[in-house]
Amino acid sequence: MQAASAPRGPGAEGVEVLLFDIFGTVVDWHGSIVRELAHAHPQVDGAAFARAWRAGYQPAMARVRSGELGWTLIDDLHRMVLDQVLPQFGLAHLDEAARAHLNRVWHRLDPWPEAVAGVKRLKSRYICCTLSNGNLGLLTRMARRAGLPWDCILSAEVFRAYKPDPATYLGAAKVFELPPARVMLVAAHHDDLAGARACGLRTAYVERPFEFGRDQPKDVAARPGNDLHSRDLLDLADQLDCPAAL
Amino acid sequence: MQAASAPRGPGAEGVEVLLFDIFGTVVDWHGSIVRELAHAHPQVDGAAFARAWRAGYQPAMARVRSGELGWTLIDDLHRMVLDQVLPQFGLAHLDEAARAHLNRVWHRLDPWPEAVAGVKRLKSRYICCTLSNGNLGLLTRMARRAGLPWDCILSAEVFRAYKPDPATYLGAAKVFELPPARVMLVAAHHDDLAGARACGLRTAYVERPFEFGRDQPKDVAARPGNDLHSRDLLDLADQLDCPAAL
Repeated sequence: MQAASAPRGPGAEGVEVLLFDIFGTVVDWHGSIVRELAHAHPQVDGAAFARAWRAGYQPAMARVRSGELGWTLIDDLHRMVLDQVLPQFGLAHLDEAARAHLNRVWHRLDPWPEAVAGVKRLKSRYICCTLSNGNLGLLTRMARRAGLPWDCILSAEVFRAYKPDPATYLGAAKVFELPPARVMLVAAHHDDLAGARACGLRTAYVERPFEFGRDQPKDVAARPGNDLHSRDLLDLADQLDCPAAL
Repeated sequence: MQAASAPRGPGAEGVEVLLFDIFGTVVDWHGSIVRELAHAHPQVDGAAFARAWRAGYQPAMARVRSGELGWTLIDDLHRMVLDQVLPQFGLAHLDEAARAHLNRVWHRLDPWPEAVAGVKRLKSRYICCTLSNGNLGLLTRMARRAGLPWDCILSAEVFRAYKPDPATYLGAAKVFELPPARVMLVAAHHDDLAGARACGLRTAYVERPFEFGRDQPKDVAARPGNDLHSRDLLDLADQLDCPAAL
C-alpha cells in the first residue's frame, strides 16, 4: 500500500485526508435497528422505534455541549435515550442484560451496500479516517464486523467535543499536520458539512435518501457550498479518480 | 470479518484486545534509519546515527513526564533530538527541508519481516490496536505504507501521557470497556510490559534480538512475569491459536 499520492478531481486539489461521518453516511442505522427489532421484538414498530431512539441523539449531545452533562460517551448517551424510549414501545420490562445488548446494536450497524467497496477505492489515494461522534470502542467494533478498512479511527472521544464543535474538525487536521483545506469531510448531513466548512475544511455531500427509512425519504438535492456532491461512496471514488480495482 | 470470538491459548484466556507497542516491536527503527542514511548520507555511520537518535528518545519523553516540557508530540521530540545529533555526525549543514524530511523517517519505518502476516493472523481472533508513544499521524502514515491492518490506532497522544504512565494502559482498556485483565500488551521491552502488568493487563514479550542492529544483539531471554514469551508475531499467533490463513 502506498502513501496518499497527489489527489485528483475537481474540488479536491491538495486534499490528503478524507474524514468520514459514520451514522447515516457510512452505516445504515435505521435499517440495522429495524432488522434487530424485527428479530428480537417483532411486535414493535421497528421503524418508529429507530427514529425515536435516534431523535434523542442530538438533544442528548446538546446537554453535553451546554455543560449540563459532563463529558459523556455516545454509548452512554444512547443508553440514556434508550431507557426513555423503551416504555413508549411497551418494552419497559427489558432487564439490564437485554438493555445492554440492545444498546450495543450501534456497534453492529450494517454499512450501506456500497460503503466498504467505496472506502477501499478511496483508500487507494487518500488517508481514510472516521470523524464520528461515536466513541472509539464502538467505531472499532463496528469496523471489524463490517469490514470497513479505516486507516485511522478518530472520534469526538479523542477531542472531548462533539461535532459540529470546531475542536473536532480542526483537531483532526492537526493530527495529520495539515492545513484544514487539505482535509475533506464526507457526510450525509448539511449541518456537519457546514461546521467543517466554517473551519476551512473541504466538504463532500453523500446522498442517503433513505437514512430515515424508505417511507420517509430525505431531501438530497445538491446545495451550494459543498465542494462535491455524490450519490454514494462509489460515485465519490469515481469523482476523485480512485481506481476501481485495488 | 467477525467480531473477536472467545480467545484461546494458555495465558490469554478472556483476552479480547491486543495492544501493540510499535517502535522495535512491530517496526525495525534501526534498520530503517540505517537504510535511509545509506541512501541520503552514505558518508555517515548509519548504525551509530540511528542509535544516537533513539538514545535521545527516553530522556526527551522524561522531560515531558516531569513537566519540564509541556505536552509535546513524538514528531516534535524526534526533531529536537535530531537537531542535537546532526552536528555530531557532520550533518549540521542540513537545511530545514532536509531536516523535516529526515525526521519523517519515523513515518516510513519498515515492519519486521513477519509483522504484517502476524498481525493479520492475530486480527482473526483479537481486536488489534496500537498503543505507542508515537503520535496518531505518524502511526497512521506508517500503517498505510507498511500495510499494517490495525483495527484501531491508539497513541499516547489520545491520553496525553507517555507509556509507562498508567493513564495509557488503563485508558486503552477503558476505550474498549474492558477490565485490564482482558487486554494484553505485546511488546519487545520489559519496562513497557512491567508498566502494563502493574495496571492489571496481560503481557506478551516479543524477542527482537537485533532491535539495535546485528552488531549489538539484545538479551531476549524469557523473564518471569510475562504471560507469554514469543519469538515473533507469527509465533505469538501460533501460541494464541490464530489460524494461518484468513
